[in-house]
Amino acid sequence: VGQSGGPTAVINQSLVGVIQAARKSAKIGRLLGACNGVRGIKEGRFVDLKGLDDALLERVAQTPAAALGSTRDKPDAEYCQEIFKVLAKNDVRYFFYIGGNDSADTARIVSELAAASNHELHVFHIPKTIDNDLRVTDHCPGYGSAAKFVASAIMGDDRDNASLPGIKIDVIMGRNAGWLTAAATLARQDEQDGPHLVYVPEVPIPLDKFVDDVAAVYTRLGRCLVAVSEGIVDENHKAWGEKIVENAERDSHGNVQLSGSGSLGDFLAGVVKTRVAAKLNLGVKKLRVRADTFGYLQRSFAGYASKVDQAEARLAGKTAVQYALGGAASGSVAFKRTGRGAKYGIECFLAELKDVARETKSLPRNFINAQGNGITAAFCAYALPLIDELPVMGKIK
Amino acid sequence: VGQSGGPTAVINQSLVGVIQAARKSAKIGRLLGACNGVRGIKEGRFVDLKGLDDALLERVAQTPAAALGSTRDKPDAEYCQEIFKVLAKNDVRYFFYIGGNDSADTARIVSELAAASNHELHVFHIPKTIDNDLRVTDHCPGYGSAAKFVASAIMGDDRDNASLPGIKIDVIMGRNAGWLTAAATLARQDEQDGPHLVYVPEVPIPLDKFVDDVAAVYTRLGRCLVAVSEGIVDENHKAWGEKIVENAERDSHGNVQLSGSGSLGDFLAGVVKTRVAAKLNLGVKKLRVRADTFGYLQRSFAGYASKVDQAEARLAGKTAVQYALGGAASGSVAFKRTGRGAKYGIECFLAELKDVARETKSLPRNFINAQGNGITAAFCAYALPLIDELPVMGKIK
Repeated sequence: VGQSGGPTAVINQSLVGVIQAARKSAKIGRLLGACNGVRGIKEGRFVDLKGLDDALLERVAQTPAAALGSTRDKPDAEYCQEIFKVLAKNDVRYFFYIGGNDSADTARIVSELAAASNHELHVFHIPKTIDNDLRVTDHCPGYGSAAKFVASAIMGDDRDNASLPGIKIDVIMGRNAGWLTAAATLARQDEQDGPHLVYVPEVPIPLDKFVDDVAAVYTRLGRCLVAVSEGIVDENHKAWGEKIVENAERDSHGNVQLSGSGSLGDFLAGVVKTRVAAKLNLGVKKLRVRADTFGYLQRSFAGYASKVDQAEARLAGKTAVQYALGGAASGSVAFKRTGRGAKYGIECFLAELKDVARETKSLPRNFINAQGNGITAAFCAYALPLIDELPVMGKIK
Repeated sequence: VGQSGGPTAVINQSLVGVIQAARKSAKIGRLLGACNGVRGIKEGRFVDLKGLDDALLERVAQTPAAALGSTRDKPDAEYCQEIFKVLAKNDVRYFFYIGGNDSADTARIVSELAAASNHELHVFHIPKTIDNDLRVTDHCPGYGSAAKFVASAIMGDDRDNASLPGIKIDVIMGRNAGWLTAAATLARQDEQDGPHLVYVPEVPIPLDKFVDDVAAVYTRLGRCLVAVSEGIVDENHKAWGEKIVENAERDSHGNVQLSGSGSLGDFLAGVVKTRVAAKLNLGVKKLRVRADTFGYLQRSFAGYASKVDQAEARLAGKTAVQYALGGAASGSVAFKRTGRGAKYGIECFLAELKDVARETKSLPRNFINAQGNGITAAFCAYALPLIDELPVMGKIK
């Protein structure tokens, strides 16, 4: 079993799920943890996971980020042959890979090349991503916890913005998908609560429109809280973040580095400060504009995971092992929703690796309002059950 | 009663403490909440706080930021005369002001000018600040919750950095005092845990030294997590943040805007990327460097306050009213520690406004290590009791 890609608050729940299910079966002789995903396999770096005691496992399950270490490596044919040699040497015939769409693609490549070279290897992908952008599954382990963090952050930040009125821009993770940014909307408990504007990458946003929207809210309420995805694109479908960052880094999967920098937030704050002040005939000094980039805290903050998300991530790990024991050849664990609202529930099914790999799932259009600057009640009904509990704000009118 | 300055997660606990204590006394006929602090008094914007029901008050107490609204206004003589007129008209003779050192200074000015103009006014300052930089008191309400947030964020971020090794720089609030940045150290549970380096404004840090330190840790551990105060200064005692931000804003108290921008983090990440890579003969592309600026979440995140901090903030509000009822003329509520470690406890006393106003309290030298790049166990013993509970990380060795 290995972990791959950007960590989440519950990726170790899935790991512990795999360990617990594997321990229960007499058919599984050894369970090796690959350090740093496929890279650790290639380099023969393993830890024996069967000997860990239960108290430690529960602590690991509560710990954010990948306890086995992660990687962004994407194996090619040569890399895979090295992997197969190490796996054969260790008599490994089942591979569980916990990760997002790039990791699903790695799982697919490894699986296909193993079959092509007659190396017996059953590959199971266990989903995780705060971006919630995997295809097929209803939602992804890791998302609920990140959504809870974002909603709580926005809820407090909205009270902060109401205390010292001005324009506040919060930049939220999610690459090319708006799922996590949309979760900012879950913070709204009253009509006038922020976020007053929410921008996701699914709807292109020209800078003029952004400035006009902010100015209109500020005129109406005397303040404005804006949630912006790191991946928002302009009218030419070019990512703002990519335009701003010089020498933008790309990882081995071709993704541009959008996180780990405050540049998009600072850029938007600068534009808003100048242009909204001019538009409303305010002195630049009179207009309080701030930006925060929520950054890695969204995926790794300790002690505030969603309990629903934790349980589901554990379940995904356990279920992958059960599919393997049941004789499935390979696949990706996916969730299907069995009930809505108070009757929320899920069941697992096994999707094909090729259907989950590479391509991602965008926020559907009916989760975004007509103007492309807000999120609908339909999204909130979708996302709320994934979070155990949100704070309730008290206000003096 | 009014609230002033940057909000905290528990400033409303103090407000509710004032309301509850005032309700209990038959001597207090009316309790007015001033909207946006002294500005609301000047403009006659008040809410009657005696009619609010208990359930709402408890929700307000749990809500971050200033429920009455805040202000950065610093009254001068003319402003004060306007305030006195409004107060006289409303028969207000007691003023409770919840805020930091600038708000204590406002309280002092209002108190002194009231005495000088024979206007009967008893002014009580109730401390709050995530910066923990008020003089006289052992610590400040608001700090424990911000410290809990920072420690939990760093704890998770350290696991994230261990998963995908590289150099990570986290910029933490605190203006010219290192208290909140020091709290990052509370995240360390094992020898090799981050933060590996902690920089506070109390010790000047030349950029060369910063780069050398980071390179040394990276060479030793293959990764490095750095906590940096937004207020760090160079060898000429010039704030890095101020050097970088063009046209830095100043508020009415003369404070430069250091928060609400990712520029310091991005600057340090850029420097580290180039110079550490060169120093270690690594390709720039090989060295993973990221920066996060924790921003306003540190003072306003909802649902994760320290219970100790909440209780103490409530106590500070209640106690201010008791001092007023007991006949004290004016002053600032302060905490004295009555026991250490497991025997931690506090008692309140009344300090003089002039001793708390304006000047701030720096981190003492014995809380910072000899090299000026880390925080000592003495600090941890001081700060840990202010946090109810921190997550415990589980690791697979």
